Amino acid sequence: MPGLFITFEGGEGAGKSTQAALLEAHLRAGGHEVVRTREPGGTPGAEALRDFLLFGGHDLSLRAEILTHFAARCEHVDRLIRPALARGAVVICDRFADSTMAYQGYGIGRGDAATIGLIDVLAGQVGLVPDLTLVLTLDRARALERLHARGGRADRYEVADEAFHARVAEGFETIARAHAGRCVRLSADRAAEAIARDVAQLVDARLAGPA
Amino acid sequence: MPGLFITFEGGEGAGKSTQAALLEAHLRAGGHEVVRTREPGGTPGAEALRDFLLFGGHDLSLRAEILTHFAARCEHVDRLIRPALARGAVVICDRFADSTMAYQGYGIGRGDAATIGLIDVLAGQVGLVPDLTLVLTLDRARALERLHARGGRADRYEVADEAFHARVAEGFETIARAHAGRCVRLSADRAAEAIARDVAQLVDARLAGPA
Repeated sequence: MPGLFITFEGGEGAGKSTQAALLEAHLRAGGHEVVRTREPGGTPGAEALRDFLLFGGHDLSLRAEILTHFAARCEHVDRLIRPALARGAVVICDRFADSTMAYQGYGIGRGDAATIGLIDVLAGQVGLVPDLTLVLTLDRARALERLHARGGRADRYEVADEAFHARVAEGFETIARAHAGRCVRLSADRAAEAIARDVAQLVDARLAGPA
Repeated sequence: MPGLFITFEGGEGAGKSTQAALLEAHLRAGGHEVVRTREPGGTPGAEALRDFLLFGGHDLSLRAEILTHFAARCEHVDRLIRPALARGAVVICDRFADSTMAYQGYGIGRGDAATIGLIDVLAGQVGLVPDLTLVLTLDRARALERLHARGGRADRYEVADEAFHARVAEGFETIARAHAGRCVRLSADRAAEAIARDVAQLVDARLAGPA
């Protein structure tokens, strides 16, 4: 039995990690093997690349940054995600290739055709597309409230300017429209439990097989 | 005036760095602007990735390792090599994409078609091919003598087994045959000055323009 690969996408503060944890609990209660993970990261080597990218203070060219993200992604897919799917597990991943497209392609790269093309080529080389992508949408003002309440170590994206975050949000919209079969947009401006019920319903439908 | 991009390739101990330095001196004496650099590395960000790859002790999947090499390469090309070529400099680089093909594609990957294909796709995305590649060839026994005489910090390749180094050497042979227009094989089992004379002659011919 092949597993199911589910990704959560969206800006910071939209509640992706919370929803991933709630979905994991729901699926475990249903008797499924669940592997919950995140990007960048997910294996020791990929987490080392995550630190390099998010907290290393290294100034890389945009193409180099994109390739390093995909290096971490290949490590994660090869070592953790593919083996889990092969044994029939449900893999829940907090961010995946759509985040590279939104942040590097649209946010930093401003939708430049060569940059979008590079990300598309690399995503093709990874050779793994999610079965279902839940894109959590939230006003930037509301997201900032949540981020301030949360505290903790701010990474390089959280301190970027508001125009950048607007481009990222538009990027996620563009991606969700272009991949309507796999992406579902969900408003994150609701109680976590209400969002979790929608998510559980969507995932249960996929687990039940093609409609 | 477009510059000239020259790479040195071959196994450890073949004298690539020595030849790169001798070529630099020859070209400077002729009044050329020369940028001498190396891979992995060449810019601060790429050198940080070099340390990650060669001395970090991180265990990455082969695909992740290949992508990290190309991340460092894109950084190097974007920030140092392309700008230098654009202003007409001669760029001399100790190792480039052929080394990834030889070490990761043939050495570690054992010529597996998917691995070779990935490296080809990534090399295409870099979008820069050397004008001239000098492949220094040397018996492994002679190379080991030189490496032992040299001392210093051994990287992960220098401590690999002999079968690995044989595959790498075969990889360089395959690459040189497949790209005969750009690659020239030179025996490195001679005095450095004799090799340098051959190299200078080949480079001077390229600088003089197409035959």
